[in-house]
Amino acid sequence: MRDFYPEDMFIQNYILETMRSAVESFGFVEYSSSILEPAELYEAKSGDEIVSEQTYTFTDRGNRRVTLRPEMTPSVARLVAARKRDLALPLRWYSLPNVFRYERPQRGRLREHWQLNCDIFGVQSIEADIEIISLTSAIMREFGAQDVDFEIHINNRQTLAETLRTYNLTDDQTKAIYKLLDKKNKIDNFDEEMQKLIGKKIEFNEKPDATTVTVLERLKEYGISNVHFDPAIVRGFDYYTGIVFEVFDSSPENNRSLFGGGRYDNLLKIFGIEDTPAVGFGMGDVTLHDFLKTHALIPEYIPSTDLYIATQNSGVVEDAQALAKILRAEGINVAVNLLDKKLGDQIKTAVKQSIPFLLILGDDEIKSKNYIVKNLSTGKEFTVGQKNIAEIIWSNIEEE
Amino acid sequence: MRDFYPEDMFIQNYILETMRSAVESFGFVEYSSSILEPAELYEAKSGDEIVSEQTYTFTDRGNRRVTLRPEMTPSVARLVAARKRDLALPLRWYSLPNVFRYERPQRGRLREHWQLNCDIFGVQSIEADIEIISLTSAIMREFGAQDVDFEIHINNRQTLAETLRTYNLTDDQTKAIYKLLDKKNKIDNFDEEMQKLIGKKIEFNEKPDATTVTVLERLKEYGISNVHFDPAIVRGFDYYTGIVFEVFDSSPENNRSLFGGGRYDNLLKIFGIEDTPAVGFGMGDVTLHDFLKTHALIPEYIPSTDLYIATQNSGVVEDAQALAKILRAEGINVAVNLLDKKLGDQIKTAVKQSIPFLLILGDDEIKSKNYIVKNLSTGKEFTVGQKNIAEIIWSNIEEE
Repeated sequence: MRDFYPEDMFIQNYILETMRSAVESFGFVEYSSSILEPAELYEAKSGDEIVSEQTYTFTDRGNRRVTLRPEMTPSVARLVAARKRDLALPLRWYSLPNVFRYERPQRGRLREHWQLNCDIFGVQSIEADIEIISLTSAIMREFGAQDVDFEIHINNRQTLAETLRTYNLTDDQTKAIYKLLDKKNKIDNFDEEMQKLIGKKIEFNEKPDATTVTVLERLKEYGISNVHFDPAIVRGFDYYTGIVFEVFDSSPENNRSLFGGGRYDNLLKIFGIEDTPAVGFGMGDVTLHDFLKTHALIPEYIPSTDLYIATQNSGVVEDAQALAKILRAEGINVAVNLLDKKLGDQIKTAVKQSIPFLLILGDDEIKSKNYIVKNLSTGKEFTVGQKNIAEIIWSNIEEE
Repeated sequence: MRDFYPEDMFIQNYILETMRSAVESFGFVEYSSSILEPAELYEAKSGDEIVSEQTYTFTDRGNRRVTLRPEMTPSVARLVAARKRDLALPLRWYSLPNVFRYERPQRGRLREHWQLNCDIFGVQSIEADIEIISLTSAIMREFGAQDVDFEIHINNRQTLAETLRTYNLTDDQTKAIYKLLDKKNKIDNFDEEMQKLIGKKIEFNEKPDATTVTVLERLKEYGISNVHFDPAIVRGFDYYTGIVFEVFDSSPENNRSLFGGGRYDNLLKIFGIEDTPAVGFGMGDVTLHDFLKTHALIPEYIPSTDLYIATQNSGVVEDAQALAKILRAEGINVAVNLLDKKLGDQIKTAVKQSIPFLLILGDDEIKSKNYIVKNLSTGKEFTVGQKNIAEIIWSNIEEE
């Protein structure tokens, strides 16, 4: 489980707010739901096994089995099902939940992470697929990533399913092939493994089908240069029905899948929602954080506090708070020293807490109503009247 | 447990963001931590009984007893303890966690709510008490509340403890008296109940002590008119050591305690942190929501989406997305219609989703590069070139 000290919280808020800003620009609106759901909700989708092995499931006082949500899709399906008549489909919905999974059950460790979930409900045409993939590109760019920093691989599960159908495989064999394909880019002996699994060799399409070609063309027209066809993209889940995609870090240091998604037109049926095509993806904060770190895209910590008012003696705290009150009304976030400490120690506190601006209040300043505002990172000092303190801080922040 | 559809999420975000803005203006910085903590963390503070009766405690796969946090104080104490040397005290820290309690154990219902937690760690003087109470006033005002809408009642637990000490009560009797005092304003037969409990009548101070008088005077100087001494203010918990306060709704319809806090200088010792005085409070979203409703202070729903682009035929979706891309880069949040539906149905969708602006894109608009932007709430229409779409939307939003 994770703790967030102010410096960590700053990065976490940066990640979530950047995601929020990108998805809202595409017209997605936010929803949320309970972190505890009835265990049955997940059993319907994944089968008993996954629920008991990979989730945090327990019995509550009311003797019901409940699960700390391992993902958001069943919850959003429940929300849509409950109000499908009143909701004006199509919907563009997003959420930023924390989700819980045992990543390494052998260690008994619970992993908590935050996950952006975006879905378009109610659009059958590939316009939705194109928009969702455009959106993933827009999110990555919003974080400052260039197209060379990551790659978007796409495939069509429908075409894949049609190919497999011609080989008359059992359901178990089909599942095994999907799992193997998912690892194709990581293993050398793909054909050999395939022989072991099903006793024959399947000829997969080397070229994209017409739908995939259209999607690729449209994305390139929108200026997305880093999107490619990749016949090995399957996505782990059984429920994808059309275009699937996966975003990879291009860096040799962190060369791995960051996140992905696709079309899952039949999944909502399990939750009692008929005829609702869906396209979506989930993007975790932990893998994204690694990506940002690899590409030096994590911003430096700047606290929400703009100004620290140090007090020359404890008699001026009252005046300091009165000055702070005026500045707060002007939109400046102000921390006032409340301790009877030496000025040097007060300034150390401000520096240690990374507060960008300092104002020392003493009897002289109270009398003259002239104040010195110091930019603690550049060392620059500005002598100003009370009316200009906010202005000086704003203009200095903008400069940086 | 609670679900948030977009309209609910809007209000929830409004409440949390307004709290955030107010507390950051006082120099508080945000932290967070895991929602699951070892059960012992709560037992240390509250005793076994409360942990097992009022919390959600269970055994995980590693055979450890864990609790869904019922409050934030033990977690923040853990965070401060772990890095006390590196942290530059005093700290002004806040958090906006969801917390979990069985409010009515007989129904077996789990209650989840969000709670603003603010604490100042490391300040012994009443300057911290004054600042924390100023802050609660500032938060309420940030929500649009006037001083007549709520009252801040304060008392001094230290003086109260000294008074009780002169009566030679047992620990159990003292606790019983605190509990009774907590109900004083709600019951008629206070003296009678006191006789029953301890067999004598205690003379409580009718007037505030010197510390309380100073706090009251300073708060009035800062323009806070609705703060009063109230000898019945105790706060339920055993751990308060100095000034305590409670905020009440003044409305006869909702005449109840909204939240409160105070000084708790000894609590952090339990968590291994010596000599760290603390003042703080917790403010729940549910009671605050009721307050806002009672005083008609809940804002109307406005979705994050600014503009809906309707498409005259399915051939123009590509152009619509290209136009949307330009507008998104200018800061406008745009939803594009992706379905092959009648214009009237598309407009209905925009209206039902409360999207404020509409632009209908057809072959004429693509050719002429002139667009009609319609304000869906006023009905006003504006004919503009592409470069002026964002401007028209911004100026219309500002007008409202």
